[in-house]
Amino acid sequence: MAEVKNKQVILKEYVSAGLPKESDMAVVTTTTKLKLPEGSGGVLVKNLYLSCDPYMRSRMTKHDSASYVDPFNPGEPISGFGVAKVLESGDAKFKQGDLVWGMIGWEEYSLITSIQYLFKIPTTDVPLSYYTGILGMPGMTAYAGFYEICSPKKGETVFVSAASGAVGQLVGQFAKLAGCYVVGSAGSEDKVDLLKNKFGFDGAFNYKEEPNLDAALKRYFPEGIDIYFENVGGKMLDAVLLNMKIGGRISVCGMISQYNLVQPEGVQNLMYLVSKQLRMEGFLVTKYFPLYGKFLELVLPHIKEGKIIYVEDVVEGLENAPSALLGLFAGRNVGKQVVVVSRE
Amino acid sequence: MAEVKNKQVILKEYVSAGLPKESDMAVVTTTTKLKLPEGSGGVLVKNLYLSCDPYMRSRMTKHDSASYVDPFNPGEPISGFGVAKVLESGDAKFKQGDLVWGMIGWEEYSLITSIQYLFKIPTTDVPLSYYTGILGMPGMTAYAGFYEICSPKKGETVFVSAASGAVGQLVGQFAKLAGCYVVGSAGSEDKVDLLKNKFGFDGAFNYKEEPNLDAALKRYFPEGIDIYFENVGGKMLDAVLLNMKIGGRISVCGMISQYNLVQPEGVQNLMYLVSKQLRMEGFLVTKYFPLYGKFLELVLPHIKEGKIIYVEDVVEGLENAPSALLGLFAGRNVGKQVVVVSRE
Repeated sequence: MAEVKNKQVILKEYVSAGLPKESDMAVVTTTTKLKLPEGSGGVLVKNLYLSCDPYMRSRMTKHDSASYVDPFNPGEPISGFGVAKVLESGDAKFKQGDLVWGMIGWEEYSLITSIQYLFKIPTTDVPLSYYTGILGMPGMTAYAGFYEICSPKKGETVFVSAASGAVGQLVGQFAKLAGCYVVGSAGSEDKVDLLKNKFGFDGAFNYKEEPNLDAALKRYFPEGIDIYFENVGGKMLDAVLLNMKIGGRISVCGMISQYNLVQPEGVQNLMYLVSKQLRMEGFLVTKYFPLYGKFLELVLPHIKEGKIIYVEDVVEGLENAPSALLGLFAGRNVGKQVVVVSRE
Repeated sequence: MAEVKNKQVILKEYVSAGLPKESDMAVVTTTTKLKLPEGSGGVLVKNLYLSCDPYMRSRMTKHDSASYVDPFNPGEPISGFGVAKVLESGDAKFKQGDLVWGMIGWEEYSLITSIQYLFKIPTTDVPLSYYTGILGMPGMTAYAGFYEICSPKKGETVFVSAASGAVGQLVGQFAKLAGCYVVGSAGSEDKVDLLKNKFGFDGAFNYKEEPNLDAALKRYFPEGIDIYFENVGGKMLDAVLLNMKIGGRISVCGMISQYNLVQPEGVQNLMYLVSKQLRMEGFLVTKYFPLYGKFLELVLPHIKEGKIIYVEDVVEGLENAPSALLGLFAGRNVGKQVVVVSRE
């Protein structure tokens, strides 16, 4: 029975509040047997690509698991979405050699016992790493949050915050495909440049250079915003509420500006929900996973025809995964943050 | 042509922030001709009952009229919902002697030029003043905000804030009719008593006596809240967000605790919109006025059979209207605040 080295990224202990540090995680090397346990209905995989996502911050803090995704277990490998290759399968849906995406460990080899959210990758004529992003969980997030929650109509105005991230860049391109006017915000000139010149946003601005977010939004949306795809929260949300149109919709995907604060910023302009008759809806992508087939049908042809562009920020090696993850909260990544564990 | 005295309540000047004072209004006596102007398509009415409603606070402040109801005009009579009798009509929909409800002036006689939201009162076997409340705008507000926005299901748990007010008392009773468990909050023992012993709420508490709103809600909703009918905003909303169930709905009707603050309280727990997949929707009742007939069909039989109870706080005389209005913000009223201008 083959026993191999298995490098892992573990969470050393829970992070209570504030920005996590690299020293909160450790890269360790263990050994593992490359064999499914007797009678297991799970899948043994070799991990290829890992996805770094903002929601992972919440899993680093001990919290009431009933209210959200479970926290990580200190001393055990971190887990997240990723792409892997099946080495051995105890379930008829998967066979050796299949490429899959879903929840895997931050390690070289994982035994996946919960295969409910494990998807077989149907084609490989797009880069495999795309299944950590545009063709994986973040892609489904953009799809569900934009189409299912906001019901966009041609000619509507759309604002996306954290727009150069994995989800935001896709929301903007969906908005253009839907015939909308779309503007995004991001935190550096490089990112703003990407939004305008690569992803086809009608406008983009660097929120760090705007002394007054309300004024910035009024510049881009003199008639107001129909749809806001919310990724950041706090002051940006307050400024957006001032600028929504009557009957507007806010899809709440995340609030990355708040995740590392001891106390979240208070949002003061919620009374506009009433006066402007706004709907604000939070969602978790897992609810929409049954739409994955429909999503692929929409998005794969657009990628192949070059109508949807996708930018990744790729880091090599599991040992660099902790700093890549923390880079999300400092806004260091340009595009979707991916970590390569192995290129097969 | 008869010329009569016409007592009026006028707004002297705009109130910028803070609690309005009685001296911000004045009761004056003018004269008016009891004759429709030549060619007018409006309606001349004698006013009977006035409705005091929290939303009127926003009309006392100069603001961008595009975003909400227009502000009042200083020096002119305040306007609001009320019940009146038609003296002369320039529109075929109304004739002399008809009883109507809709937007009227705080005065003895009004010329109504905009009759879009003027409704003919079909029956008079319930008290006429009910058409300022349960059978008028506040009733439609409860109906739209509960049934249309929240889609209640039997067995769900419902929380109503400002529950003894015109809207809240009705939402609670709708919730019971829908087979829900309902708890309300209010600001005095008298009101709590009304909720429990008159309106049939399953529970009620005095928020002023609760040092910890989160703990109070956990006491009444150990399993969490499916539906929150939001009337107050601020700290209460923050506590509710902590206690919503996954997939919960929040109907945002108003935020009375915030109306007189220079700066609204910040709401910090909005991240629960994502983790609990909540929908939060603001609304204005005017959008739902086309459902008025359907609403009357539902609610009139229940009133006649005594299955829906309604409590009014009735003040006599237009000269007492300013203090009655301000009483809303001090929580002085017990039940729907009505002002009698004339009993026909």
